[in-house]
Amino acid sequence: MDTIFFDKKPRIRATGTIAGPKECAGIVGKYVDKCLTDDTFGESTYEKAECKMLSYAVSKTIENAKLSEKDVDLLISGDLLNQIISASFTARDFDFPFLGVYGACSTMAESMALAATFVNAGHYKNIIAATGSHFSSAERQYRYPLELGNTRPPQSQWTVTGAGGALISYTGGGNEKKFCPAITCATIGKVVDYGITDVNNMGAAMAPSGMSTILNHLQDTGRKAAYYDLIVTGDLGALGSRILKDLLWEKGVDIQPNHVDCGEIIYNVIEDEFQGGSGAGCSAVVFNSYIMDKLKKREINRVLLVATGALLSTVSSGQGESIPCISHAVAIENV
Amino acid sequence: MDTIFFDKKPRIRATGTIAGPKECAGIVGKYVDKCLTDDTFGESTYEKAECKMLSYAVSKTIENAKLSEKDVDLLISGDLLNQIISASFTARDFDFPFLGVYGACSTMAESMALAATFVNAGHYKNIIAATGSHFSSAERQYRYPLELGNTRPPQSQWTVTGAGGALISYTGGGNEKKFCPAITCATIGKVVDYGITDVNNMGAAMAPSGMSTILNHLQDTGRKAAYYDLIVTGDLGALGSRILKDLLWEKGVDIQPNHVDCGEIIYNVIEDEFQGGSGAGCSAVVFNSYIMDKLKKREINRVLLVATGALLSTVSSGQGESIPCISHAVAIENV
Repeated sequence: MDTIFFDKKPRIRATGTIAGPKECAGIVGKYVDKCLTDDTFGESTYEKAECKMLSYAVSKTIENAKLSEKDVDLLISGDLLNQIISASFTARDFDFPFLGVYGACSTMAESMALAATFVNAGHYKNIIAATGSHFSSAERQYRYPLELGNTRPPQSQWTVTGAGGALISYTGGGNEKKFCPAITCATIGKVVDYGITDVNNMGAAMAPSGMSTILNHLQDTGRKAAYYDLIVTGDLGALGSRILKDLLWEKGVDIQPNHVDCGEIIYNVIEDEFQGGSGAGCSAVVFNSYIMDKLKKREINRVLLVATGALLSTVSSGQGESIPCISHAVAIENV
Repeated sequence: MDTIFFDKKPRIRATGTIAGPKECAGIVGKYVDKCLTDDTFGESTYEKAECKMLSYAVSKTIENAKLSEKDVDLLISGDLLNQIISASFTARDFDFPFLGVYGACSTMAESMALAATFVNAGHYKNIIAATGSHFSSAERQYRYPLELGNTRPPQSQWTVTGAGGALISYTGGGNEKKFCPAITCATIGKVVDYGITDVNNMGAAMAPSGMSTILNHLQDTGRKAAYYDLIVTGDLGALGSRILKDLLWEKGVDIQPNHVDCGEIIYNVIEDEFQGGSGAGCSAVVFNSYIMDKLKKREINRVLLVATGALLSTVSSGQGESIPCISHAVAIENV
C-alpha cells in the first residue's frame, strides 16, 4: 500500500501566497495575500526574487496563523532551481529546522505529506510546507536565456511566478476543527516514465504518473473518484489534463466531472502560455489561495491534490534520457 | 525541541555500498560490497555512472536484507546533481514509491531520519535511505570541466565516488534485535551561514552547522558528548573537523576523544585530496560499510552520525551569496 493515513487529523491552519502580475490577472488574483506589480520583487536577479517570494509566503503563513516564528517547529520546502537554493536561502532567514525536498512540481504535495506525517506522529506541532517558482529563473535554467527571444512551441506551458505555504498543525479539535481542513491521507508516488523526450511537452510526460498515483490512491482507500468534490492536479496544463482523463477513462475511472488542473485554470487569457501554467509554484499558489478559500468556506469539502512533477534535468535530457515523472497525492477534507 | 525520538526502534536491517578505485584503496575497501576498478562503471557518462552506482547500492541493500523488491515500501533518496537526477533515475528502476530529498552532503542523515519517522509511525515496514556522489560529475557541475586540468587549492576536498543505502525496518524485536542497530532519535538541522564565500573551503563553511546541530542534539537529549562511542561527521575534512572541534570546545563541549570525520578518514594517502573526501557519497559509503561493520560486531554501540551539507549552487555563488549549510544528526545504537 502506497497510501498513509493520518488518524490524528493534522490540519491546515493557515496558508500564505504571493504571485506575479501575469498570474494575478487570472483566477488567483483576488485570493493571494500579495500581488506583485514587478516580477523582480525589487531584487537584482530573478533567483533572488524567487527566494524572496518563498520567504514572503513562509512569513505570511506564520502571520495568517496568528503565530510567531518561535512557534514553528520545522520548514519543509524545495523548488526547481539547482540545489533548491530558493528553499535553502529561505530557510536561512528563519530560526527553525529545515528539511529540503525535491519533487519538481510535485513539491507542494510532497512537503504537505511529510509535514502531515511528522505532525500526526506527534513529533512536531507546527510545520510549514512551502514551495514556489519563477518564470524567468526557470526559463534561463531549463531552457534558454530570455534575451534570446526564442519562440515557444504550442505544447509548452508557462512557469508560474509565485509561491505558497501551508501551516500544518496538530490542533486537537476545538475551534480550529470548524475552520481548518484536515489532511486525512497521502499517497506517495512511484516514478513513471512513458518514454516522452520532448522537454516542451511536460503535460504528456507527467500525465501517466498522475494516473498511476490516482489509481493507487483510489485502490488503497477504496474510494471512487466521485468521493472527491475536486481532484486537483498540479500543472498538467490543458493537453496533459486531457491525456490524464483519457488514460484514467481507459482504466474505468472517470474524473471528468470533478477534475481541475491548476495549470489549466491559473491564466485567464491564454497567449504565450499555450497549455497553461506549470512549475512548483503553480499548485502552491492555486491550492493555497483559491482552493483553500473554497474549502474554508465549505463550498467544497473533499479535495484530492495530486501535484505532478517531471524529474528531468538539462543534463539528463542532453544525454538522451526520457523524462521520468512522479505525482504525490494528498487528501484534504473538512472532517 | 529539534530532536525527534523513535520509541518503536526502527532498525538498520541491512546496508549496501559501492565505491570507486581511489576510495577502495582506503579504509572502506574491505567493507564495501563492490569496489569499482573503472569509475565509469561501464557507462558513457559520469552522470550515468553515478546513477548506476546508486541503483546498485539500492539493489544490494535489498539483497543483503534477504528481501525482494516487492518487500520494499519506499525509497528516500537525493544526490548532488541538478534536479537530483541520480536519485530520480534510480527510483525509475524500481517499482516502489519514492520521496526525493535535497540536503547536499547531509542527505544520508536526512533520508535516514525521514525513513525512521515513517517506520516508527507504522506507515511503512521497509524503507531504503540512500545517496551517492561521483567525483567527475560533481567536478564538472560545481567547478570546472576536468579537461581543463585546473589546480586545486590546499583547502579543497575530493568528492567521493561511491554510493550507499540502508534499509530501515520495523522488526518488532526478535532475532534482528541482536544484530541490527536501531535509530533511536534524530535532530533536524537549522540552516547556518557564517558568511564563508570560498567554494573551495566547504569544511569551514559547514563546521558551524555541525556545531549547531550537535549542541541542539546534546541539549534536547540531555546527553554528554561522551555518551557516544563515536560522533561521526559527514565530510568536514581535516580543516573543517578542526574548526568544528574548536567551535564546540569554545561552547564547553569536547568531542576530540570520540570524533571521527568520514571525509578525513576515507582516503589513506592524501595527494590531490588535500583535506579529504566530501560529497553525499562520503558519509553514505563510510557509515554504511565501515561504521556499520563496527556497530554490527558491537565493537562500538552508540554512534551519532552528523552529516553536513553545503546548500550552495553555482548560481548562488555567482550572485555573490555566501554558503548556507545544514547538518542533520541521527543516533544509531545497539539497543
